[in-house]
Amino acid sequence: MRRMALLLIIIAGMACVVVCTAPASGHADEAATPVFVTKIPPGYRNWRLISVAHEAGNLNSFSAVLGNDIAIKAYREGKLPFPDGTIIAALHYRFVASEENDKVFGRPQSFVPGAPTNVQFMVKDSKKYAATGGWGFGHFQDGKALTGAPMQTCFPCHQLTKATDLVFTHYAP
Amino acid sequence: MRRMALLLIIIAGMACVVVCTAPASGHADEAATPVFVTKIPPGYRNWRLISVAHEAGNLNSFSAVLGNDIAIKAYREGKLPFPDGTIIAALHYRFVASEENDKVFGRPQSFVPGAPTNVQFMVKDSKKYAATGGWGFGHFQDGKALTGAPMQTCFPCHQLTKATDLVFTHYAP
Repeated sequence: MRRMALLLIIIAGMACVVVCTAPASGHADEAATPVFVTKIPPGYRNWRLISVAHEAGNLNSFSAVLGNDIAIKAYREGKLPFPDGTIIAALHYRFVASEENDKVFGRPQSFVPGAPTNVQFMVKDSKKYAATGGWGFGHFQDGKALTGAPMQTCFPCHQLTKATDLVFTHYAP
Repeated sequence: MRRMALLLIIIAGMACVVVCTAPASGHADEAATPVFVTKIPPGYRNWRLISVAHEAGNLNSFSAVLGNDIAIKAYREGKLPFPDGTIIAALHYRFVASEENDKVFGRPQSFVPGAPTNVQFMVKDSKKYAATGGWGFGHFQDGKALTGAPMQTCFPCHQLTKATDLVFTHYAP
């Protein structure tokens, strides 16, 4: 009986922690848990180039990083933090050798995008995404949004680039 | 005196060869020697993405390949040969490791564009560039057009991609 009472006290205490840490605003759910980008921003494949990148190792990816007009303007003006409305798209492909080009060059040296793997987005909305530094993170594979645990890793990693408002990619002139 | 007469005959013969091989049209010079792109097409940095590429070895380059509206439309519709007015731009940078990103990942794996090296163009104009498959080739370093012997290598190399109208780069979806 005493053990049951103790258990109830512990459960009550845990409930208190949950209630007490929930903010007073009407958007308790949104503020308490990160909000992710769940819809692909339309027309992103027509946006202008920010830069390119290659991640070796397990990722083995080739990236083209594009930005909407607000993103491109901010990059070119060196405006930090990025204004609300900024959207940055990272189009990822497999990093593959081009047999076709290598034949021409006469040696293995040419690498091109293979199959598309995913498209990631960073959407700046300082209110909606207040809990994650003003950025909403999105990851789409075959048009489907990734959710859950893997998405929890975006913000902590991007926090390591605070000097550039959580954005890794620099503008390629 | 007889040697002088012989020399004159030889010179006259050489002149004849030059005159005889020049085409009958009023654009003798343009048709007889390859014509290169000598002016940077305005606004190319705002064009849309065709693809990305990396050349290892001595080139060690990172490329972003962009296209004007005519190029993008032709690529998306799979239209070959490319129509007149097509312009393809290849922006080249050094291929460098990103110390900044590698610190975050905890291992050397991230590669980004370093200093810009050159910008190359292919301009389709089937009349003006008839002698080089309808394509004018351009190579600009610090805004200055490359001319002469190195430019003579563009067309022979691009001729090895006849199936795609002399264009190496495929469209990245």
